[in-house]
Amino acid sequence: MITIALDAMGGDHAPEEILKGALEAVKAFPVKIILVGPETLLKKKIASIGDFFKYPQITIKNATQIVEMGESPAQSFKKKPDSSIRVGLNLVKAKKADAFVSAGNTGAVMATSTLVLGRIKNIDRPAIATVINIHKKPFVMLDMGSNVDCKPKFLYQFAVMGTFFCKLILGIDNPRVGLLNIGEEPDKGNALTLATYDLLKNSSLNFIGNIESKEALCNKADVVVCDGFVGNVLLKFGEGVIGLVFDFFKKEWKTSVIAKIALLLLAPALKRFKKDVDYEEIGGAPLLGINGVTIIAHGKSRAKAIKNAIKIAQQAVETNMVEKIAYAE
Amino acid sequence: MITIALDAMGGDHAPEEILKGALEAVKAFPVKIILVGPETLLKKKIASIGDFFKYPQITIKNATQIVEMGESPAQSFKKKPDSSIRVGLNLVKAKKADAFVSAGNTGAVMATSTLVLGRIKNIDRPAIATVINIHKKPFVMLDMGSNVDCKPKFLYQFAVMGTFFCKLILGIDNPRVGLLNIGEEPDKGNALTLATYDLLKNSSLNFIGNIESKEALCNKADVVVCDGFVGNVLLKFGEGVIGLVFDFFKKEWKTSVIAKIALLLLAPALKRFKKDVDYEEIGGAPLLGINGVTIIAHGKSRAKAIKNAIKIAQQAVETNMVEKIAYAE
Repeated sequence: MITIALDAMGGDHAPEEILKGALEAVKAFPVKIILVGPETLLKKKIASIGDFFKYPQITIKNATQIVEMGESPAQSFKKKPDSSIRVGLNLVKAKKADAFVSAGNTGAVMATSTLVLGRIKNIDRPAIATVINIHKKPFVMLDMGSNVDCKPKFLYQFAVMGTFFCKLILGIDNPRVGLLNIGEEPDKGNALTLATYDLLKNSSLNFIGNIESKEALCNKADVVVCDGFVGNVLLKFGEGVIGLVFDFFKKEWKTSVIAKIALLLLAPALKRFKKDVDYEEIGGAPLLGINGVTIIAHGKSRAKAIKNAIKIAQQAVETNMVEKIAYAE
Repeated sequence: MITIALDAMGGDHAPEEILKGALEAVKAFPVKIILVGPETLLKKKIASIGDFFKYPQITIKNATQIVEMGESPAQSFKKKPDSSIRVGLNLVKAKKADAFVSAGNTGAVMATSTLVLGRIKNIDRPAIATVINIHKKPFVMLDMGSNVDCKPKFLYQFAVMGTFFCKLILGIDNPRVGLLNIGEEPDKGNALTLATYDLLKNSSLNFIGNIESKEALCNKADVVVCDGFVGNVLLKFGEGVIGLVFDFFKKEWKTSVIAKIALLLLAPALKRFKKDVDYEEIGGAPLLGINGVTIIAHGKSRAKAIKNAIKIAQQAVETNMVEKIAYAE
């Protein structure tokens, strides 16, 4: 059975929602979970949350330190050798766990994963791959913030890794790779995308050309490649725009009785829409390119997102994703 | 009275909506408008559209060629010396018009403006500034696609130009300048934003630091500075996300009677929301940094957007925006 080291202290709703997520996961999948965090605290929380005693698949590994959300990744690595992130990743390195899942400080999870587990040898830079799932048609976008200054070959490697992720985790045959750009024509773009275009065109990947950000949302590609600065800014902008829409409804709800009635009638549909564009449905972004499986869950993750992140970790391990990326030519 | 050269042949709804926009503009503002395009065609259209004869402020300047939306800017400049874009800008250069407005091929308008009118001497690269107007609190973002590879000093110059635009056209005193970035901390960002941060920090601008894309939507800065690749990708992504929302409602409308009733009740609110996030309310993006006033309207512009673009052109001329940018230290 696969063993997942789970950062019990990472994220805005830790440890409660993380523990609940672990419980949901062992009920749903055949996995063992090692909760990583302060043992005394976790034992106390567990007692108050649920019937953990029924699930011997869940154990605890003590870690006395916690990396805060705003902390510098480099600093936290130096100063907190017994953090839940570091201890969890050490479990993977020591082969006591097969994968690590955390909703904690993204920069720290990324840096510590790279430092503890190392990079896959033909990959220059690990990348965060985010699954965007609109209308039940998921696609993966990378890099979403790990590498803010990229060379063309990094983007090419992102495309290779994204292709494996799509095949193995999302079950998409021959994934279509698109290069995020300001226009579809091959001569559009900045120095980085122009050079990357040529690399991708001459590769064995299923490269479909440049793709505009608007088109990416219409599932025109399965793997959308961009540098981490663009990816990160875009992802947050999307969250911001969706936020505007829901803020608007909230305001209407408060100020107008008619709007209230309408929104009540629309509630099931809006719920479906939210589900359609919701990160919780996928739950975690894999850090691709490291020598091991790390899944980064959203800082706002609740139990369901954690459960789904654990599922992605399990699939990545079962399908030997890391080995396949390592032996890609 | 200020004279605007208006590209009658630019945009998806040309010439009809452009002509209607001209008519609305002269009814609303004290401007003269020179419609630029094939004279015979325009005369015919005018006769069918409205009471143009009552408005001698509207005249026609013949231009026999049209730049198509997909055409290469460089090619169109070489091959179409009598295009409505070129002829319109020649009117500005010859001081027969004070400003040029076009909803046509953005790249061609940009390139032709730069080639015909020239750059302001202390500006390295002209930039497209887009006004984003959420909840009636507009802010300006630039560059939105003119410069896909930027140096820090270009971004600094964008900040200077954006500040003037905010003061003169949007009427904002001491505009807050934010640098679009992946985090708020000064040490966050890519090589470009890190170097730009220092330039802005040591300038006389009202620099408030880095701003995340999500926060930009909450009116935390009046001028948001980014390179043209990021700006363009972001703008289209925002349009795409809003599109998803409205597509969703359209689907619900078709498939559910309850949703139909709810949407009918919500209609006035949704209309307000659309207006709140609508480019038509502003109408045009100025091309800042050239020796003259060019306003680029959205390709989808209808009469109202054209009218509003003309208004921006008029304000830019009246406030001597170009001269003020030219003499900024």
